[in-house]
Amino acid sequence: MTKKIIYSDRSFRQEFIDEINRLAPEYTFKTKLEAEDLPQVEISIGWNSMYQQELLASNHLKWVQAISAGVDYLPLAQFSKKGILVSNASGIHVESISEHVMGIILGYSRGLFQAQRAQIEQTWLGSSVHYQAVENKKLLIIGTGHIGKMLAKKATVFGIECYGINTTGHPVDGFKKTYSIDQLKNVLPTADIVVNILPLTEQTNGLFNQDVFNVFASHALFINVGRGASVKTEDLIKALQQEKLAFAALDVFEEEPLSKESPLWGMENVLVTSHIAGQTSHFQKKLMAIFLNNLKTYVAEKELSMNEIDLSEGY
Amino acid sequence: MTKKIIYSDRSFRQEFIDEINRLAPEYTFKTKLEAEDLPQVEISIGWNSMYQQELLASNHLKWVQAISAGVDYLPLAQFSKKGILVSNASGIHVESISEHVMGIILGYSRGLFQAQRAQIEQTWLGSSVHYQAVENKKLLIIGTGHIGKMLAKKATVFGIECYGINTTGHPVDGFKKTYSIDQLKNVLPTADIVVNILPLTEQTNGLFNQDVFNVFASHALFINVGRGASVKTEDLIKALQQEKLAFAALDVFEEEPLSKESPLWGMENVLVTSHIAGQTSHFQKKLMAIFLNNLKTYVAEKELSMNEIDLSEGY
Repeated sequence: MTKKIIYSDRSFRQEFIDEINRLAPEYTFKTKLEAEDLPQVEISIGWNSMYQQELLASNHLKWVQAISAGVDYLPLAQFSKKGILVSNASGIHVESISEHVMGIILGYSRGLFQAQRAQIEQTWLGSSVHYQAVENKKLLIIGTGHIGKMLAKKATVFGIECYGINTTGHPVDGFKKTYSIDQLKNVLPTADIVVNILPLTEQTNGLFNQDVFNVFASHALFINVGRGASVKTEDLIKALQQEKLAFAALDVFEEEPLSKESPLWGMENVLVTSHIAGQTSHFQKKLMAIFLNNLKTYVAEKELSMNEIDLSEGY
Repeated sequence: MTKKIIYSDRSFRQEFIDEINRLAPEYTFKTKLEAEDLPQVEISIGWNSMYQQELLASNHLKWVQAISAGVDYLPLAQFSKKGILVSNASGIHVESISEHVMGIILGYSRGLFQAQRAQIEQTWLGSSVHYQAVENKKLLIIGTGHIGKMLAKKATVFGIECYGINTTGHPVDGFKKTYSIDQLKNVLPTADIVVNILPLTEQTNGLFNQDVFNVFASHALFINVGRGASVKTEDLIKALQQEKLAFAALDVFEEEPLSKESPLWGMENVLVTSHIAGQTSHFQKKLMAIFLNNLKTYVAEKELSMNEIDLSEGY
């Protein structure tokens, strides 16, 4: 009898493969698929769009374990129609993204990015560096999930006041106050630092447009570590040029890699990073903590125990 | 009768001058001195070396309130001989320096400085960024005073393990373990991050030389926010070239401003900042908290109540 397949296009350390085999002895773990394997794939770790058509056509695919927190790039409508379970990797990027954002907040506030540009031009800035205390600064964290909460915890240690925005405005531990997404434009003018960590959904697609940038405080720092498509890049560039806000640190873009022609590269009030905020040294261990937990309940009762996506909401 | 003078070469907000006048009505506060004022100066806030000879000759100078934590640039031996009291500004740079150092630790670990260099060259680094988790990294803080303690507190929130070095190795709250300065070379090899916050004394002058850099871990990050003369610049440059350590973030230098000819400007494994780590937005308020406290006891009993320097130790 042909064994059912757990497919992943990236490999994992032997200890994790051993554990998969122990928990799911009726399955074979494969990182490469032949044509005849495709109909046997029941579980996919990550999503290789090369096989999308065949995997969806086979009717054997039952569960996709995404390797990212956001799942907007997956064919969610088709998964939903076919009853395919989806779980995300939410939680595994909590440390790295919160460290990345704190690195930007402190680096910007202490003038480190300005200093590095000056160094490259062999210029001693002396006291003309733009620095500011972060104490009592107002940080608006848009997205109060795992990452937002960890960020608030770390920022609070520096005396930063943390405000949150989520769908309904429900209160969240660690935030001084939370608001619903409808109130975004009312809250923005009071924020010194604005961080977007929202997943991409219909509601957040193009959320940061000209109207929204117009109400930013002119000294504000904007950090996007959510999704590129949540920001209208052209509107942001105009807003930065018109000094509607002071600085933008962008890790995600509407188009990735960022086009060679983008004006963002050359702007001194922009820090471009190449979708690295979520990169973690402990990726395998953290992802497997989720996957193996889910595999246990999946094998026993075809159910996931954690990180399951509500396919009607998209996150 | 000529009033005694409190001299400062920088001005302060009226509220502070009012408070000085209230506490010390027999004194005049001046920010500019005429020749005939010099013999009347009894208290100096900051130290203007232009007047050094006259102020020391007059025998009226009794107290110098430094505006920095380090006081190595003051003529301490002469102050000592004449019984002139010295107080420093230790404490006022606690927030700014600890924020600066955390900005460097996180910025380096998350690849932000590498990313900014790539941005300037319009290069999308993708996943070739060197990042690493800071969790469980070993941070060796050389100098366990106000600043060291605050830094340890903040670093601990990120899961960083903090070790300290001070003169005698006495234990300090917030540090996993402390060592005496004699043990420096034994402890250095185990440190992932090394931060120098020591004042400049005979013992710390040239402390970081070739022998010391030779025992650094090759992946180590070195941060100097103490004094420039504690590091032998030539030895550091060689050590970086020979990859005895991975990266140096330097805020202070043997010669300031850093010479146009210094190789440090062009090194990609160096971040040069222009003696900015201690800059604080709340300078006046914080310095006056120390000065006014001392002024009260000085007026009453010619004694200082805080931040007095032991002139035999030099800090």
